[in-house]
Amino acid sequence: MPSATNWRVVLEYDGAAFNGWQSQPQGRCIQDVVEHALSRLLGGEAVTVHASGRTDAGVHALGQVCSFRAHADRPPERMLAGLNALLPPDVSCLEATPAPPDFHARFSATGKRYRYVIRVGPGRSALRRGRCWPIHWPLDVSAMEDALRRLVGRLDFTSFRAAGCSASSPVRTVDQMALLQVDDELHIEVHGEGFLRHMVRNIVGSAVDVGLGKRPPSWFDELIDRRDRSLAGRTAPGAGLYLVEVDYPATLTRS
Amino acid sequence: MPSATNWRVVLEYDGAAFNGWQSQPQGRCIQDVVEHALSRLLGGEAVTVHASGRTDAGVHALGQVCSFRAHADRPPERMLAGLNALLPPDVSCLEATPAPPDFHARFSATGKRYRYVIRVGPGRSALRRGRCWPIHWPLDVSAMEDALRRLVGRLDFTSFRAAGCSASSPVRTVDQMALLQVDDELHIEVHGEGFLRHMVRNIVGSAVDVGLGKRPPSWFDELIDRRDRSLAGRTAPGAGLYLVEVDYPATLTRS
Repeated sequence: MPSATNWRVVLEYDGAAFNGWQSQPQGRCIQDVVEHALSRLLGGEAVTVHASGRTDAGVHALGQVCSFRAHADRPPERMLAGLNALLPPDVSCLEATPAPPDFHARFSATGKRYRYVIRVGPGRSALRRGRCWPIHWPLDVSAMEDALRRLVGRLDFTSFRAAGCSASSPVRTVDQMALLQVDDELHIEVHGEGFLRHMVRNIVGSAVDVGLGKRPPSWFDELIDRRDRSLAGRTAPGAGLYLVEVDYPATLTRS
Repeated sequence: MPSATNWRVVLEYDGAAFNGWQSQPQGRCIQDVVEHALSRLLGGEAVTVHASGRTDAGVHALGQVCSFRAHADRPPERMLAGLNALLPPDVSCLEATPAPPDFHARFSATGKRYRYVIRVGPGRSALRRGRCWPIHWPLDVSAMEDALRRLVGRLDFTSFRAAGCSASSPVRTVDQMALLQVDDELHIEVHGEGFLRHMVRNIVGSAVDVGLGKRPPSWFDELIDRRDRSLAGRTAPGAGLYLVEVDYPATLTRS
């Protein structure tokens, strides 16, 4: 049997019709459709695909990175075209390249960028259904910026961590936090070495409470200090969240 | 019976799952779902909804304008909220206001703006499926700009007119034509007093032939001069086309 090739694959997906990345007894999940497409492409070989992280139900990806080992040999351009032919319309493959043997989409990742999209205004948007969090009241953008910039640094994010989070430490480094106004949308762009479960969505939910005037920006200092999830705001809906890109050491993304 | 109110309604829709605006024996159409929602909202009153123009299958709207007369009396904010509650997820109501009696969405329109979205690059985009024309080869943007600007003016657009077009004259005035690069997308923005059937899509199809190097920009002068549809390029897919907004005299949009 020839030695297996380690593959690095970049995926885009519309999370609206998925129950998240991970295989589970109920509901359609991205991992299953990717493994199914690969098995067809590789002549029936069963592969296990590892993602950089497990996106939740409704969450989208502009550049989710996955890795898997396969014995069947395929040229990269055929892997790319084959995946795009076999994946459902709401998942697409942007890149497929052989990777060094020690590359692992999850364990090799050194950073991630997320975008959260809020639509501000009355009514609803047909074209952006399932792709943003609609907020019907005006938001105080400068108060939100004031709150969010307090989260840049190496901090204890316990107050923004979901109940079921299995990470051993609640300390994370966030090195970029930006709030952009794009027409009637607010984009919250976050970059960090890694994130706790629901961390971005809990930060956004709390930032919206600040934007609505329910809390002052200094509340974010208190949330960091108090380390108590029950003090922070609601979890923003998955539909507004996009995994934009995942960082790896340059030596691991060259094949 | 009280006199009917004339209504002006602005709609956004995702055209992907529609067979266009107009009622027809086969396929789901936007006119039907809007008339159905209105009938439910107005206690069973049957209304006929006129749009500014009949968008084709797959074509989207960011601001389609419609008008209709209804006897049932509803406050505008209830009309807006009611339509958004009763319309399917892929159609939304952005505005609903009473209009002067002589306002007609089609006959009162004085101009329209369309956007055509091309995605340039390999593979496909899951999040933009049904919302752009994917072109897999590089396009010469400056050649396309050179071609497109030749269409600004009052010209005979016979070469860009669909076979079934019922307009009495092929002469139209295009006053704006812009090509914008937005990340991996090209946006062709067109504004004019009115458009022939498939005119924007036929212009875009021909512009892509120029972008691919199959034709020089001066070909557009020839197309205008020769007045022969068989000489122009293919019709670009409906999925990339967005009706952005419709213009009316200010006196007709105040109630």
